[in-house]
Amino acid sequence: MNIAVLGYGTVGSGVVEVLNTNQDSINKRAGQDVNVKYVLDLRDFEQDPIQEKIVHDYDIILNDDEIEVVVEVMGGVEPAHTFVKGALEKGKSVCTSNKELVARHGAELMEIASENNVNFLFEASVGGGIPIIRPLHNCLTADEITDIKGILNGTTNYILSKMSHEGLDFDTVLKDAQDKGYAERNPEADVEGYDACRKIAILSSLAYGKQVDFEDVLTEGITKITKSDIAYAKKLKAGIKLIGMSKKLGHDVYAMVAPMLLPESHPLVGVNDVFNAIFVKGNVLGDVMFYGQGAGKLPTASAVVSDVVDAVKNKGSNIMASWKSEKRVLSDVKKSEQQYFVRLKGAGREEAVKKTFGEVTFVSISDEKDETAFLTGTMPEKEYDEKIAGLGEVVNMIRAEL
Amino acid sequence: MNIAVLGYGTVGSGVVEVLNTNQDSINKRAGQDVNVKYVLDLRDFEQDPIQEKIVHDYDIILNDDEIEVVVEVMGGVEPAHTFVKGALEKGKSVCTSNKELVARHGAELMEIASENNVNFLFEASVGGGIPIIRPLHNCLTADEITDIKGILNGTTNYILSKMSHEGLDFDTVLKDAQDKGYAERNPEADVEGYDACRKIAILSSLAYGKQVDFEDVLTEGITKITKSDIAYAKKLKAGIKLIGMSKKLGHDVYAMVAPMLLPESHPLVGVNDVFNAIFVKGNVLGDVMFYGQGAGKLPTASAVVSDVVDAVKNKGSNIMASWKSEKRVLSDVKKSEQQYFVRLKGAGREEAVKKTFGEVTFVSISDEKDETAFLTGTMPEKEYDEKIAGLGEVVNMIRAEL
Repeated sequence: MNIAVLGYGTVGSGVVEVLNTNQDSINKRAGQDVNVKYVLDLRDFEQDPIQEKIVHDYDIILNDDEIEVVVEVMGGVEPAHTFVKGALEKGKSVCTSNKELVARHGAELMEIASENNVNFLFEASVGGGIPIIRPLHNCLTADEITDIKGILNGTTNYILSKMSHEGLDFDTVLKDAQDKGYAERNPEADVEGYDACRKIAILSSLAYGKQVDFEDVLTEGITKITKSDIAYAKKLKAGIKLIGMSKKLGHDVYAMVAPMLLPESHPLVGVNDVFNAIFVKGNVLGDVMFYGQGAGKLPTASAVVSDVVDAVKNKGSNIMASWKSEKRVLSDVKKSEQQYFVRLKGAGREEAVKKTFGEVTFVSISDEKDETAFLTGTMPEKEYDEKIAGLGEVVNMIRAEL
Repeated sequence: MNIAVLGYGTVGSGVVEVLNTNQDSINKRAGQDVNVKYVLDLRDFEQDPIQEKIVHDYDIILNDDEIEVVVEVMGGVEPAHTFVKGALEKGKSVCTSNKELVARHGAELMEIASENNVNFLFEASVGGGIPIIRPLHNCLTADEITDIKGILNGTTNYILSKMSHEGLDFDTVLKDAQDKGYAERNPEADVEGYDACRKIAILSSLAYGKQVDFEDVLTEGITKITKSDIAYAKKLKAGIKLIGMSKKLGHDVYAMVAPMLLPESHPLVGVNDVFNAIFVKGNVLGDVMFYGQGAGKLPTASAVVSDVVDAVKNKGSNIMASWKSEKRVLSDVKKSEQQYFVRLKGAGREEAVKKTFGEVTFVSISDEKDETAFLTGTMPEKEYDEKIAGLGEVVNMIRAEL
């Protein structure tokens, strides 16, 4: 079985390395030999043995009937979308790690794959090496999924973990993460939550069966989280995590990416550094969690290659037709209920707070003497907005489930 | 598609409940309607609508060609083994939650299933509702598994968690667990590690491809763990967990069930109460962990029903031929390397310990003044045995990876 790899960057070279390292066991599991025939890249790699497989023209791959599986690890929407669509229409299966592509065109590409009796597989697009797409699709089939909460971005989890363990500021830790190569020079996609947003859109589409458009998902990043927030969280025996979440309540589906206070005993709070984890609740299963390395060359490549094995094993039958292109209209997150941790400007505001919010939990830290901080009860966000409006300036608000 | 359920106990009634609760989505995912035609039980259930499906004679099920899937949730080796074998030979797929059956006869039953082009599926036999069998078989296909560590028994994890959080004795907590129904009146299978032993044998067979006999797995329970051990562990910033572990080093495979000290930062240490988790290391993937409810009526039934969905979807093709009946001869655990936490009788033995073990970490707690406790470096168990022999009476030894 001949395959082609589109893109010889970090993940692409990882895919070649994994196929070489575990050649025997991969071939055994796939049921036949898996051979990389072409690698598409604009660059040449003169010092690398891969050079003999490098092609610069995608049509060579597209028009070679010997290529049965295409691995797309270029990233970005175009030209990946055109390339993938072309391959599927030619009867080639595609395995991708490209979350932008899956979030935007997943339903369409699964449909084209199904029509052509091939597969469009994307295990690596969420959670890197963590098996999550296949478990959601193939394992949790006895359940109605009611709740997903994920730490879906390693960079932001590294930053929040380090802020929490070492009592440092966001800016200091971001710089450290950039120096270590955990964060990009332009960190926006990570720290503003855009990366997590695409991933929760994919998971929500999969869990609830219709296309969730990532543009519809309320997205807040971690740039406003300070070391005072973390000190308050500790007082509340809580951790702050950037959570991509979605939940189904009756006919309503809510989705959001935002920093969140969770109790220290919650399994997600124990997920530190660059690790990712996805917590899923089923109506009969209860809680399960999938944990592992959410990024990195070899873990991500491992997930891509497991898709290649599936594509080879299931040649001629479509195994992954999982959500419809019909749009899932998300319900207004302002109707979604949770608690709110609030830092109000000005000390001594307890009576006013109690008058407005009823029973709350007040909390204080020695570093912030000029504010009144509290945790509300559970209420719709709309109700919180209305109540807080009368109380003056808010230094910060973080959603909570404590 | 008609199915029969063998045994209307906790899991069996759970399977019927899950099929009723999520009927629509299960039928959709299975691609056809799943109907329980018979329930085999020795008892009658006059007040329960299930009574109209109750049969007492297995031959009715075996000889009914309409029955295509048999759910075996009786437990125990016989008559389960005879019933399951008979069903597979008649061309019926079997889904089971029975760890004794899978540990003892898994390879044989998978072979018979394969010869008859049906499936023998057993997701619920390890980790209850946690997807672990299918992920190991279908997801981690790009990797060589090098290491498995599992909290595989909810009862012992509940006991150790409560001892740790509340500073209580083993006997006190066991009694509480029995009162709450988390532990049997005869708790031996749980507290002596026999249950975990069968489960690690299944996982090891699956990960390394040949039959690991559970009788070959060194098995120690938690009955010797005291509140002093836990106090020492806290001083070492560690937790004590009953771990079913196996590892592959070159051509050697080691397997063991024993209490173990792991660092507080290890994801398994955060797994509390009756929850289970399985931590897996792959040579390219790195670490992944699967977490959830390892027992209980509905979580276990959810896993069984997900197997039923797979059996229905994959009618006519064998999807689970995963380990050979050829025996995997385990290597002598005395050659396996780890650290050892040792409590030596008598205070002030530090010099003798250092002379024998070289560099160690001494630790003391106020409750145990008449002993010398220390953590060794990493060495084969045989070397530890030889060294400790000259040092007098050992109050307790617990293996460690710190």
